This record gives sequence, C-alpha cells and structure tokens, in this order.
Amino acid sequence: MGEELFGYTGEVARVLRELGAEVGDRIRIVKPDGSVYEGLLMPRYALSRKQIIVLKLDNGYNIGVRFEPGTRIELVEKRRAAPGAIVTVPLLEESPPPTPKPRVYILGTGGTIASKIEYETGAVKPAMSAKELLDAVPEIGFVAEIDAGVLFNILSENMTPEHWERIADEVARLIGKGYDGIVVAHGTDTMAYTAAALSFAFRSLPVPVVLVGAQRSSDRPSSDAAFNLHAAVLTAARAPFAEVVVVMHGETGDTYALAHRGTKVRKMHTSRRDAFQSINAFPLARIWPSENRIELLTREYRERGREKLRLENGFEKRVALVKYYPGMSPEIIEFLVERGYRGIVLEGTGLGHVGEWLIDSIKKAVDAGVVVVMTSQCLFGRVNMNVYTTGRKLLAAGVIPGEDMLPEVAFVKLSWVLAHAKSVDEAKRMMLENIAGEINPRHTVNMYPRWPHEP
Amino acid sequence: MGEELFGYTGEVARVLRELGAEVGDRIRIVKPDGSVYEGLLMPRYALSRKQIIVLKLDNGYNIGVRFEPGTRIELVEKRRAAPGAIVTVPLLEESPPPTPKPRVYILGTGGTIASKIEYETGAVKPAMSAKELLDAVPEIGFVAEIDAGVLFNILSENMTPEHWERIADEVARLIGKGYDGIVVAHGTDTMAYTAAALSFAFRSLPVPVVLVGAQRSSDRPSSDAAFNLHAAVLTAARAPFAEVVVVMHGETGDTYALAHRGTKVRKMHTSRRDAFQSINAFPLARIWPSENRIELLTREYRERGREKLRLENGFEKRVALVKYYPGMSPEIIEFLVERGYRGIVLEGTGLGHVGEWLIDSIKKAVDAGVVVVMTSQCLFGRVNMNVYTTGRKLLAAGVIPGEDMLPEVAFVKLSWVLAHAKSVDEAKRMMLENIAGEINPRHTVNMYPRWPHEP
Repeated sequence: MGEELFGYTGEVARVLRELGAEVGDRIRIVKPDGSVYEGLLMPRYALSRKQIIVLKLDNGYNIGVRFEPGTRIELVEKRRAAPGAIVTVPLLEESPPPTPKPRVYILGTGGTIASKIEYETGAVKPAMSAKELLDAVPEIGFVAEIDAGVLFNILSENMTPEHWERIADEVARLIGKGYDGIVVAHGTDTMAYTAAALSFAFRSLPVPVVLVGAQRSSDRPSSDAAFNLHAAVLTAARAPFAEVVVVMHGETGDTYALAHRGTKVRKMHTSRRDAFQSINAFPLARIWPSENRIELLTREYRERGREKLRLENGFEKRVALVKYYPGMSPEIIEFLVERGYRGIVLEGTGLGHVGEWLIDSIKKAVDAGVVVVMTSQCLFGRVNMNVYTTGRKLLAAGVIPGEDMLPEVAFVKLSWVLAHAKSVDEAKRMMLENIAGEINPRHTVNMYPRWPHEP
Repeated sequence: MGEELFGYTGEVARVLRELGAEVGDRIRIVKPDGSVYEGLLMPRYALSRKQIIVLKLDNGYNIGVRFEPGTRIELVEKRRAAPGAIVTVPLLEESPPPTPKPRVYILGTGGTIASKIEYETGAVKPAMSAKELLDAVPEIGFVAEIDAGVLFNILSENMTPEHWERIADEVARLIGKGYDGIVVAHGTDTMAYTAAALSFAFRSLPVPVVLVGAQRSSDRPSSDAAFNLHAAVLTAARAPFAEVVVVMHGETGDTYALAHRGTKVRKMHTSRRDAFQSINAFPLARIWPSENRIELLTREYRERGREKLRLENGFEKRVALVKYYPGMSPEIIEFLVERGYRGIVLEGTGLGHVGEWLIDSIKKAVDAGVVVVMTSQCLFGRVNMNVYTTGRKLLAAGVIPGEDMLPEVAFVKLSWVLAHAKSVDEAKRMMLENIAGEINPRHTVNMYPRWPHEP
C-alpha cells in the first residue's frame, strides 16, 4: 500500500505522482478511444482497488473515469486557494481524523440514486450497486467508514409492503452489527411511503435510519445523487437523532439538504431536486455537506444511543387508500368490503368530508369490522369532523379522524396497525395515538409554504 | 326615499341623522335584550328594506344588527381621517358614480359563505340566502348593481357532476340576461372541481364567472366571507378577463384576494383563509378590495366581451379517480372496467408510475375502450412517462399522459371529454389538447412554493 496517493493505488497513483498532481488540481484525462474528461482531481475512496480516477466536473458532479491501458493524464492547472464546493476540511487534513470514524452502512434497494443510463433505449434503469456509488462519491469516505450492500434493486413504484418488511428486517440486522447509522438508497417515487413504514415498524432505534434518493440520474450533469448521498451519510454518521428520516436536497442549489421526519414528508414535485418537503411539520435538520455540518431545527427528537433496537415488523396487505371525488359511487367502498379489506383510508375533502350518499356504505364497512380513517386531500391542515353536518355523520358512522396525518402516512400506519392490534377497537385507538411523530398537535402559521403569486 | 341616509331608510335613518352619525363613525348599539355591538358605521346596501345597521367590528368583520323597537344607538367617536380598511373611495363620494354600474348576479349554491351557525348543535349548516349576504357585505353595492338568487343550497362535498351541469345551465341563462359578471357562491370543499367543470363546459364566455367561498363561517370573527365576496364581485364586475376563476384570500390578512384560473387551482389547506392556490401556474390577478383595484398578473387570458357565450354542457358519470399506493391490487382497476366505467384517471407516483403488476389490468381496460389518463400525486411538476421503464410500459399499454394537469382537473376533464367526444380516439386526442388552460406548457422555477425550513 506504499503506492497510495489520495486513496489512489498502483498505476494511477504512480502517474499522478509523476505529474505532481494534487487533489483540487485541474486535470484532463484522454482515453484510448479519444474521449476527454476534464475537471478537478478528487480523492479516491479506497475500498475498491479498481483503477478509477475521480473528477469533479465543472457542473459540480463527480464522475469516476476508468484508467485503462493507453489512457493519458494531463495537468491543466494547479489548485486555486479555495477548493471546490462540496469537500472542504477533511480533504486538506494531512493526517487521518484523530478519533475512529463512525461506521455507516449503505443499503441499496434501487431507484435513480443507484442508476445509470440504459444505453440501448436511452431510458434510465437501476443498475449500479451501492458499492459503485462509493466510487462516484468519495466525500463520504471522509465522513465515515463505509460498508455497502444491495438488498434488492427495484424501481420504487414497484415497492410493496412486503418490500418494507424486507428492508426493516435487513436494517435491523445491520444495526445489530453495530453500525452507527444506516443509509437506505431508495427510488424517490414511493420513498416517503417506505420512510413512514420504517417509522412505524421501528418502535425504537439506537441510531438514525436515513432514506436517500436522487431526482436526476447520476449520469446527468444536474444529478443530485452525490450531494444527497453525502448529506445522508453525514446524517447517518453524526446526527444526534435516532429516527427514520428522509434526506434530500432542500433547495435547487447545492446548499443544504433537509432531514425530514419519516412520517411527515411527501414528494411534492415530479422532477425538482427539492421535491421532498415536510408537510404540517418542520424538518428535523438542515444538512450542509460542504461544511460537513448538521444544523438542528428542533429539540424534539428521539436521541441517538438512548433506546435499544425494537422492531415490530409486519404490514396488513388488505388496506386501501381511496381518494374521494364528486359523484364517487358507493360501490367502490362496497367492493373493498366484499373483497375482505380490513382497512380503508379515505382521502376526503376539506376538513374530512365525502358525499353524504357514501355514508351508508361506510357505516356498513365499519359495522363489518373494517377500520375506516379520514384524511384530507388538502394535505395541509387538520381533519376536523365536528364542524359540519357531514363530518358529524361520518363520526357517528364510526370513521376515525386522521388528525393532520398525510393520507399516504395514514395508509401506511393503518397497514401496520392492523398487523399488530389485537382487536378492531385497539386498532382504532392506535390510529388516534401519535406513534411515530405522524400526528403533530401544534401547527404554526409559518408551517404553510409561501406561495408564488407573481411571475 | 327622501329618508334615505347612506342606504338606510325609515327609523334607522332618522335616528342616525339625529345623532349626526356618518359612515365611518364609531357607534354603539344596545339592543333591548342588553346585548351590545360596537364598531364603525358602514353604509347599508339598500336592496333590502329591513331595519338593519351594518357595523364593521374591530376584528374587521362586518355584521348586520337588527334595529328592533327599543334598540338604542350611541355615537362613540367621530370618524378619523383614514376610514376603515375595506371600503375607501366610493364611500366618500357625495354623488353617485357617474357611469352606470356593472350588473353582477350572485348565484348561491350553498357552503360556508352562505352559512350561519346552527345554534341547536353548534355546528355550521348552510342557511343564509345569497340576498342576505348582500345585507352583510354592503361594499359590494358600491361596486356593482347586484341581483342574487339561490339555485340550491348544499354542502359542497355533496356536489356531483349533475350539480355542475345545473350550475352551468343557470350561469348560461344569467349571462344571456346581460349581466356583466356572475358570482357563484360555493362551498370550498369541492369548489376547485366545480371551477374546472365550468371551465370545460363553457367553451367561450363574454364575461367572467367567479366562484367564491369562505373558509370560516360568517358568524365567526375570523370569517373571510365578506372580504372574499367583495373581491369576487369586483372581479365579476370589472376584470378584463372572461374566464372561470376562483377568487379567494391570497394571504391570511385582509390584504388581497387572488383570481385563480379554474383549471389550475386547488384547495391546499383544511382551514386557512389562503387555502386556495394555483398549482403549476400563477394566478391571473390580485384583487385589492380596499382599493377596489384589480392587479393583473398575466397578459394571457381570454378577454371580456370578445367571445360569445358557448356552453357545451354534460359530464360522463362513469369516470373514476384512482390514487395509486404501494401494493395496490389490480382488482380495483378490473372492478371499474366490469362496472362499465368509461374513464379512469390514475394518480400515480413521481413522473407518472404505478406498480408494474397493475400494467396488465390497465392494458385490458384500455383494450376494452376505457380511457386511462396518468397524473401525479406529487401535484407539482409534469408527468413524463418516457424517462423510466415503467412509464414507457404504461404508454405502450395505451395510457394517456396527463401533462401537468392536477389529478382532480384531469378527472373533471375526462368526465367532460367522454360526454362530448364522438369516439375513444377523439377522447384521447382531446385529453392531450389544452382546452381550458388546464395544461401549462411553460413552468418556471419560481412557480414552486417557498417551503418553510425553519420554525
């Protein structure tokens, strides 16, 4: 290992040393096929011995370029005083950090964060292993000792409650091995559902469980994969909370990421990097990867290291999320009851309403032992079924008010509750209890977004 | 009518004149039962001859106090230089406005804006007629000549496509009578659905059709009923656009209301006054009731007076809005096909996805002649089904991408399209066309809200 230089070994280390190239210098790589890559030399995360050179391109994105026989490296420009944005202090240290680094496990489950372009079709398909991600994002090696593995590799729209159970089991197994934090790389489409599922399944945690994804594939210049993964590893390694959180870009720029509580977060945009936002709650923390800093936004969290791991895994599969719309037919409720569904989360209007012609079918469902929970398609605010006649009739029919729970979170919660409650009555009680921060009793005026009213 | 004073007649006018009370003066009304009301004297809208005194309370809300025999009025304080917030210039005019005022019809359909407390139960139930609203909000009489009527009186969660049709017919009839604008007072729960329905049904309009509601009942101090109705009447009377819009509070304070395009608006909060917001679009205008001013925010609108009234009424009732969730069973799609549904709007994840195990049932639905449209539960952003494998499979199965349409709007549009297209192919083509501003081809970065990241 005497040949190591900034994490590079073998032939690459030798060539870089001959050039006098240092981390932060601008270099150009010309490959035998004539393709040219230019950018700032980044340190190499040393877990893999592959001959790969990591460059930070001008768009801010890191790539790993394979050093094949016949590849030429040129030194374009020596490093300026200020290094690039993302990696700062740890890079400039001559000696390794004094204390042992936290150990973080990155568990791959699929999604864009683990994807590269499927060249045949031009479309994106998950393909990259979690370990390969390390090669592309060397910063995380300075934050923690990284281990990585792939549990499965699916697009997150294909996640089911069975997958939630498998992820929970695997995360529990890894925590049992003594990791200081777990990162779950996950597709963004249903990441918030999985985050809620893990939040309910883990009744207590000794370390953070951090879900992370990417809105843009890591082969695109605008990819948020590296930034998000860095922020997620930092959170897993050092955050003072031991909760299930989603860590994703907080703004469009590479400024800060946010750590959202797993039961209060929602994907609010199809494509923006800052698609994930907390609803009816503030995020737990802002994560500033460029400073390796975690800025806490609340003191209300479950502390790292205070509680033991307790997993109550298992989700009822016969639960439906039904969004109300004008004129909706009762036959849809009746059908679910006939098919043996044990729970229905209604996404009603306003304070928690549906058309009055549905109330009979809902009452019959409740009488048949189905747990029916009301949420609001407004998303923001709180269900209050005592204000209007319709709400009071629904309460009388036995509908459980979902407080300020997101419809998606109420769906996940009901799936979990029905797999663990010993009776329908206990399930109803549990739906009203705040189990994993899914109910926020205190809303403040500034929790609502500022809407754009001017072009 | 010689006894008239600021719109007051009879005994009230006589007492006010004796006191030397003017509009804007602070007065106190002591009723025979001992109840006391104090506030600024407001002008009386003269359509009704009832002996009612209108006060602006210190919370900014106007109430009408019945002047019964034995009621005492005291002059507390003469008007200060600056009159109250809402009514300004027109009040101070000595002579009537020089030109004939626009004629506006307020059509009541129910909801909180037309409600008062149901005292027996403490709950709110629609009860007040549109005409009674005029008594409570005298400002609107200065903006326009008001006629009013009640079409029906229902909570808006009970609105159905049949009600949309009745409202459209009645609005068309009223426009035919020469009104300069129509205000539709409507419950807020499904007001955005009705706004979209009218937007599609009215292929062209000569005048604005303005939906308005209230988030807080008019008996509550925080009621937004008066402010919203004033803004709605102003919009109907004077806006340069002839479109279907929703006019509601723009902020929590009584500063401005917003006129949202009927196909781009959504109720985003269960209880806030500024619950209605434009999604993937900017509002058309800010309405400043205190200045009787309309501030246009765009030049892209259909102009007042340019087009003739054209109503193509009718909505297909066998259309469903189905929200996807992890693990959702194909049996729900199959059930809708079996029951003869002609259209299904899917509220998928991310860029427009569902679990791959649903694709077979979706393809069967399409093959059976059901029009299936994809939207995103993210709400913000645009469906793009060319990026990932799942999207391409869904396109191949014949799913129509819903662009940046809100799921609710796509549902209303499909209901309308299926009642008017001559074939399934024509229906599919129409779903891709921008018929009523429901598709915004240009999104800008600043169309996304600013999310609160700090307590």
